[in-house]
Amino acid sequence: MTERIREFLRSRREDGPCLVVDLEVVRENYLSFARALPDTRVFYAVKANPSPEVLKLLAGLGSCFDTASVAEIEMALAAGATPDRISYGNTIKKERDIARAYELGVRLYAVDCTEEVEKVARAAPGSKVFCRILCDGAGAEWPLSRKFGCEPSMAVDVLEYAHRLGLEAYGVSFHVGSQQANTEAWDQALASSAGIFRECAERGFNLSMVNLGGGFPTRYLKDVPAVEAYGASIFQALCRHFGNAIPETIIEPGRGMVGNAGVIEAEVVLISRKSADDDIRWVYLDIGKFGGLAETMDEAIRYPIRTPRDGDAVEPCVLAGPTCDSADVLYEKVPYPLPVSLSIGDKILIEGTGAYTTTYSAVAFNGFPPLKAYHI
Amino acid sequence: MTERIREFLRSRREDGPCLVVDLEVVRENYLSFARALPDTRVFYAVKANPSPEVLKLLAGLGSCFDTASVAEIEMALAAGATPDRISYGNTIKKERDIARAYELGVRLYAVDCTEEVEKVARAAPGSKVFCRILCDGAGAEWPLSRKFGCEPSMAVDVLEYAHRLGLEAYGVSFHVGSQQANTEAWDQALASSAGIFRECAERGFNLSMVNLGGGFPTRYLKDVPAVEAYGASIFQALCRHFGNAIPETIIEPGRGMVGNAGVIEAEVVLISRKSADDDIRWVYLDIGKFGGLAETMDEAIRYPIRTPRDGDAVEPCVLAGPTCDSADVLYEKVPYPLPVSLSIGDKILIEGTGAYTTTYSAVAFNGFPPLKAYHI
Repeated sequence: MTERIREFLRSRREDGPCLVVDLEVVRENYLSFARALPDTRVFYAVKANPSPEVLKLLAGLGSCFDTASVAEIEMALAAGATPDRISYGNTIKKERDIARAYELGVRLYAVDCTEEVEKVARAAPGSKVFCRILCDGAGAEWPLSRKFGCEPSMAVDVLEYAHRLGLEAYGVSFHVGSQQANTEAWDQALASSAGIFRECAERGFNLSMVNLGGGFPTRYLKDVPAVEAYGASIFQALCRHFGNAIPETIIEPGRGMVGNAGVIEAEVVLISRKSADDDIRWVYLDIGKFGGLAETMDEAIRYPIRTPRDGDAVEPCVLAGPTCDSADVLYEKVPYPLPVSLSIGDKILIEGTGAYTTTYSAVAFNGFPPLKAYHI
Repeated sequence: MTERIREFLRSRREDGPCLVVDLEVVRENYLSFARALPDTRVFYAVKANPSPEVLKLLAGLGSCFDTASVAEIEMALAAGATPDRISYGNTIKKERDIARAYELGVRLYAVDCTEEVEKVARAAPGSKVFCRILCDGAGAEWPLSRKFGCEPSMAVDVLEYAHRLGLEAYGVSFHVGSQQANTEAWDQALASSAGIFRECAERGFNLSMVNLGGGFPTRYLKDVPAVEAYGASIFQALCRHFGNAIPETIIEPGRGMVGNAGVIEAEVVLISRKSADDDIRWVYLDIGKFGGLAETMDEAIRYPIRTPRDGDAVEPCVLAGPTCDSADVLYEKVPYPLPVSLSIGDKILIEGTGAYTTTYSAVAFNGFPPLKAYHI
């Protein structure tokens, strides 16, 4: 929460929940990453918050952009990024979308299988590709599945195949899991990466780059290590596994770049109990899982909530959204402590909501409009 | 899948996934409900599919409408429904939204606590209210939580409070759980309802209506009982618990009205394995959890999928969506059998997708546009 956001909300007159993002915080976050990892290029993960204001700010600061679709490539270009600063980082791409990206000048693509390599070789000849490898994601708060990446043993074959098809086998990528609280989480993946570098060299071609992915956390309720601690730990792991042949590196922060820059203002719509002797209250907000807080799925992300009654005695509440969907409950397994004095009509603030909120909004579920956003 | 949808898809030229809904099927569904429950008014649950074409068709057939928000009330009115055919069925309403609904002529409101009764009494004086009670939802495929409704013991107090505040204490509502496969599921809730009717009469005011809610299933992979079986079972339960004083009844079908009328056409973007000796393939589509298939959450709804290779040998696959979100996996715990010959670029059909798809779409997650829809 910043003074600029507080000031903006004081003068706001419209109805309904909204997100306010302080661009000054995004700027500070970018500069922290640049300082903490001085030899690493920053590819901002556009999907975390693709607002034109955020993209323009970061383009101006010199950031590169990791994109998930042609639409995101076009947004990055519109914000002033040149195509050589854009990677098409989704391992799942239609061949005609690769062709479109190539037309737009993009020359850096993620792959995790030979099938995808073939598409890139046909639609974006001569481009650089990096192969994503699986990583166990231990220590991360937002669950990672096996959806992206292949076993390290297969990555060498994938990269060799790219090399044979005339692509530049450029490097390896991995993702240690979103909201990763363990600064050592990169070590094992870097050991695997170094092994892949060695095997590729033995097969007669050299890799250049390790994409360290995202995973840098934002502060929700628990303290998280500073970016500097991640930078130091990653640098040590690089030295440990690559010796004096440290590769080019890139990072893809998303949540870590914008998460703590945003605050959602929402309204308490109803507070009730399920029976006369119920010992827990239900607090219903005008925002829920389908209005932008999708990351409360399985209660994965626990946002800090500020109320105008903070300081009063609290008791645990079930927190739910406004839709007629019974799955639209934010916190129930672990109820959320809120002031007993909290009242219908109170405005509350949900902090750390600058990432993965606006774009997750349903287009019109139950007739509710998508989350409004202001980037100031 | 109908011949009309097949014909429409044959001539379709645009790129990207789309939903096609056959309005003839919706019409048949409405008529089946009307026949199976001849003394029950149908309040279509607008949230299931609020397209103007569906609403206009149903308004023309004489349907009433259950709405979740002022926007949905406005859509129903725009489709030709008069306000006396609209209920504001969300138990979680801002007082200013109740006032707006009252201005628009709506006089029927859902409540489940005294706090909501107070709002309705102030903003919609003299209106009818029905109190939603909790129901265990056993037998339903889409999980119901305790989010809506109060214990039956509290409902009498809630309704008496409404009566004292000058509202018409009109009745009781419940929901037996979405995609309810047990035709007997209404029995216990009707027993509770009859008890509430008796207690209210003892306290000096009479209820008139039981809202039987939704829950009527659509056919996915398993056969479901016909609407007639639900109608017969509900009528028997009404006789059992209300004797010769059977109340006015309404139902709120959503999924049962439009689910089987819709088919999504999607494209296979990638098929791959995670390692050379992996025994399961990953099949990635251009639609996933954030593009309209949100009801695959926890693999709750299992849609029938048709491919151009049906009849060939099948093997189990993990099925996933196109976004860079690791949670965007449709079926993994129970893999989906798909033809071994299935290829990148194949168009597949996801059946039973007429309900709870378009409006669940994220507004622009990963830059992907919301699900396109055609109602023919």
